[in-house]
Formats: sequence, C-alpha cells, structure tokens
Amino acid sequence: MNFLITGASGFAGTHLVQYIGRRKGTKLFGMVYESYGELDKYIPESQLVKINLLDRDKVMEVVKHTKPEMIVHLAAMAAVGESFLRPQEVLENNILISLNILEAAKTYARRARVLMIGSADEYGLVEQSQVPINENTPLRPTSPYAVSKVAVDYLGLQYHLAYKLPVIRLRPFNHIGEYQSPGFVVADFAKQIGEAEIDPKKVVKVGNLSAIRDYTDVKDMVRAYDLALAKCIPGEIYNVGSGKGIRTQDLLNLMLTKARREIRVEVDPKRYRPVDVEAVVADAGKFQKQTGWKPTIPLEVTLDRVLNYWRKKLAND
Amino acid sequence: MNFLITGASGFAGTHLVQYIGRRKGTKLFGMVYESYGELDKYIPESQLVKINLLDRDKVMEVVKHTKPEMIVHLAAMAAVGESFLRPQEVLENNILISLNILEAAKTYARRARVLMIGSADEYGLVEQSQVPINENTPLRPTSPYAVSKVAVDYLGLQYHLAYKLPVIRLRPFNHIGEYQSPGFVVADFAKQIGEAEIDPKKVVKVGNLSAIRDYTDVKDMVRAYDLALAKCIPGEIYNVGSGKGIRTQDLLNLMLTKARREIRVEVDPKRYRPVDVEAVVADAGKFQKQTGWKPTIPLEVTLDRVLNYWRKKLAND
Repeated sequence: MNFLITGASGFAGTHLVQYIGRRKGTKLFGMVYESYGELDKYIPESQLVKINLLDRDKVMEVVKHTKPEMIVHLAAMAAVGESFLRPQEVLENNILISLNILEAAKTYARRARVLMIGSADEYGLVEQSQVPINENTPLRPTSPYAVSKVAVDYLGLQYHLAYKLPVIRLRPFNHIGEYQSPGFVVADFAKQIGEAEIDPKKVVKVGNLSAIRDYTDVKDMVRAYDLALAKCIPGEIYNVGSGKGIRTQDLLNLMLTKARREIRVEVDPKRYRPVDVEAVVADAGKFQKQTGWKPTIPLEVTLDRVLNYWRKKLAND
Repeated sequence: MNFLITGASGFAGTHLVQYIGRRKGTKLFGMVYESYGELDKYIPESQLVKINLLDRDKVMEVVKHTKPEMIVHLAAMAAVGESFLRPQEVLENNILISLNILEAAKTYARRARVLMIGSADEYGLVEQSQVPINENTPLRPTSPYAVSKVAVDYLGLQYHLAYKLPVIRLRPFNHIGEYQSPGFVVADFAKQIGEAEIDPKKVVKVGNLSAIRDYTDVKDMVRAYDLALAKCIPGEIYNVGSGKGIRTQDLLNLMLTKARREIRVEVDPKRYRPVDVEAVVADAGKFQKQTGWKPTIPLEVTLDRVLNYWRKKLAND
C-alpha cells in the first residue's frame, strides 16, 4: 500500500514516519518543504520529495506518480503567534496547499483516504460551560491560524460531499514530544530547564500559568492518525485528545521536580496572549468509540522523554 | 455618519445604495471593482471608488480617508457554479478581500461596525430533519464558494474576538430582485420568459424543479442589512430569510401565469447540479427577535418587478 505524508519532516510528521515506516507492505512517501533533517534514517531518500505545496502542478505530478491509497496532510504554517503578524500568508498557505492536495487526490487518487488535520484551536474561545469540548461545540477561532484550520476542515468536507472523496477530518488537541518547536509550552519549558541545568544563572520565563490544557503524547497522536485512516467515517469530524486537563502551573511544577538542580521561575508579561481561554479539554468519545483508540503513554513518561531530548540537543548544539 | 459599501455596483449593492443613499446625515461611499454602471444616479461620482480589493495598501488608504462608521462588505465572487471550476481564485479572492477590509477597519476605523455577509450556502447539504435551518445547524458546504463564505464568516468572528472589532455576521438566504444575474434561478426564469415573449420559438429550459428554497425580496434584504448594523450583537451569527419555502416548480408556474403568452418548458439535464438539497428554508427567529425585521414584500410583487425588469432590459439590448 502506498502512503503519502505531507509535512513529513515536521513535529508530528517525523513521528508518523517512524511509526508507519517500519510497516510491512507499506511504501511510504514523504513530502518535505526544504530539508528533511534526519528523516532519511527512517525512509529511503528516493521516497522523500522536496516540494513547495503551493506549486499545484508539482503536487499533481507527485500524487500521479506515487499513487497513494492513504494521504496524511500534516503540512501547515502552525505558529499561532506568528499568524497574528502575517495573517494573509498563513491563510493563503494553509488553505491553498490543502486545496492542491485535495485537487490532486480528486484527479489522480480518487479512492485515497485523505486525512485532513484540523485543530482544537478551531474551538478557540469556548464557553467554559461547554468543556469538555465535543464536536458540536461552536467554533470561535481567535487567531488567523485557527481560521485557516476552519477553512481547511470545511474544504475537506466539501471535497467529500461534492466529489465523494473519502476525506477523514480530525481536530487534534495539544500533543507533545520530541521535535516540537519551543513555540509550544512543553517544548519551551523543557528547553529552558535544559538551559538552566547548564547555566545556573538562567531562569525559566513563563506566561499565563492558570490555563488548563489537554496533552497527548505525539506517539499516541500519530497512532490515532493511523487508526483514523483505517476506521473513521469520511466526512465526519472527530476530536482527538486525552480528555484530561492539567493546569500549566502543575505541568511546570512536574517538570521542575525532574530538573537536575533547583531552577528559578520568572513571570514574563510578554508571554501572555491577547486572548486566552481558561480550559481546553477534549471530549474525544466519538473518536474513541469509532476506533477503540486510547492514549497509552502517561504524561510523566512523555515529559521525561521531552526533557531528555532537549538535554541531548542542547549538549550537541 | 460615513458609510462604506464594498461591491456597491453588484446585485445587493445597487439596492443598498438606493436604500441608504437618500438618508439625511449619511455620507455614502461605494467601492466598485471596474465600473459603476448607473450607480452615479444614486451616489455622487466623487464618492465612488474604483478599487481592486486585493490591493491591501489601497484598501487601507480608502478606509483611512473615508473614515467610515459603518462598513457593509458585500463584494465577493458569488457564482457557485464557477467556483467548482476555479476554486483557488474564489477562495483566495473572497477570503483575502475580506481580510483586507478587516485589517483596514482594525487599523483606521476601530469603532466601525462591519457587516460581514456569509451565506445560506454555508449550511449546504443540510440534514432535512434540521429544516428550517437555525444558527446551530452544522455547516456542510458543498461548493468552494460556500467554503470561502465559511472562512469569511469565521474570519469576521476572529477579528471580533481578538481585536474587539464590532463585526456583525449574517447568513442571508436566497434573495431576488432587479440587477441579479441570470446565474440565479428567478433571474434565469425571468430572462427566459422575457425572451420567449419576444420570440415564440423559444422555450424555457429548467433543471431540478423539486428543490424548495426560501426567497426574500432584495429590498427587504438590504433593509435587514441596515437593521443588522444598528441592532445586532457583534460576534453573533444571524440567519436572514423569509422562513417560507417554495418549490421551484411552483415558482416557475407562478411566473408562467404572468407571462404574456403560452410558453413551453423543457428539462435540460445540464442544468442539474452535482449535489442538490431538497429544502433550504431559514429559521430567522433569532434575527427577527433582535431587530424586529420582517419581510414585507409579497413574492408575487417581487416576481412582477423582476419580470418587468427583464422585459425592459431585453427591449433595450
């Protein structure tokens, strides 16, 4: 079976490549933007395609030649903060690359199951009475990134309704692990703790610590993506998350207990977002019922892995 | 009060200009794409701005100088059928021009109430058990045009949530009247009836006649837009429609009884859409409660006006 991943060198992409790459009977192709980092450890270089997904003709050509039966479309400009500064670029990029993937699938891979990745950010500023968030919770996106994901989400549905393309739609909640960029809270804390372990003068700078978020290990998340392709109903929307909320303060405390020395914490008002919502916790019951998926990796285990990833990275840099 | 309309020379735009243009104490500015047709009968030429709304800098400049307190953003590529052929153009155009208007308002008209026009098409392939359609009915867009309107709708909400811009969001159902293009069913029937009155060899070609739709006179609709600006709650979404459904077959029969001679009807399979939904009828209760709006013009009166508009137009062409 031919399997195509866009954004293969990204955070979730790298983990998905590692998860699917070993599978017998699967020929895995990865689309990457500029460089593929260490991805060639897990996937033959000949199956890695450097491509700007805005180039419709080239996307068409690759889908025509790789003949995928499964497509996971992970590529996106995902930095929420940056999307406030460059809304046009984020909207254009995320929507048009998704359109190109869908058009290519419609033209050359009509039966390919296409996984479109939305985001918990689509729910945005949820009414706190509606937490945990199920699929009927109204969308209230607060960033241009979130709006781009709303558009991608409904574009996937439109291709399913109009052309019967088997599009699977997920809204993943926060996921954490190695390779995540320090723009995200756990990676940010881990990097800063790693730096403070090396240099005792350093402190950990933090923003709003009262927010409650739902974290899933990225390895559990990419397993969910794989299960979604196999078992979810095209056109339907599914939330994916652990269903457990943890306050950022508690998350930070947990990480600090794992630090190799005592580390000072400092509140940095610049790290506060213009709009922030108290609690974002998934009701993933629909997805769990459909696929049997359950997260298996305890938060503490993930945090240990993330801290060690950053320690190693900082030592090597 | 300064009042700015984009898409002022379009179908609803022309009617809105006629409705607002006469109001004392209002200085009305119209943005038009290429030409303004006969719009200068209703608005001074000096207040008509020819502009490509994709030109961000120019949009910024116009909003800066016209200092609007009310903005009605009507401009859009609105041809549903064409959007299937040119999805990228329709998505890019409709989303980016809306982004430019919102950015300009945020920068130079922070307190302007901005009316973003969504569409009943956002609901798309509704479950028939959910008709009449209220604001909680899930969105199932079936055309790229409809997806572009979903994106515009949520982009408006995002600017409200993130920047407190007073954005009013409407989802208008079908509206009919003079100046509508024959890509829409009532204008299409009226034009063909007018042609068949002139040339008895002509027949009226029709597609699916079983669909039930909710028609509002465009004059009632632009009155709704004006009321929405005055009375609706920013960030909230409101359906606008008559709440009455009529089967296309009955609509056609009604129009044929008004014809000046007997006219033959022919079914043309090419006029069928790939996806069509049985009934699209608005539950506009939320909007009516908020504004007191009620449609006042009976369907028969509108149809007479539309037929006479086309008779006159065909005689002059």
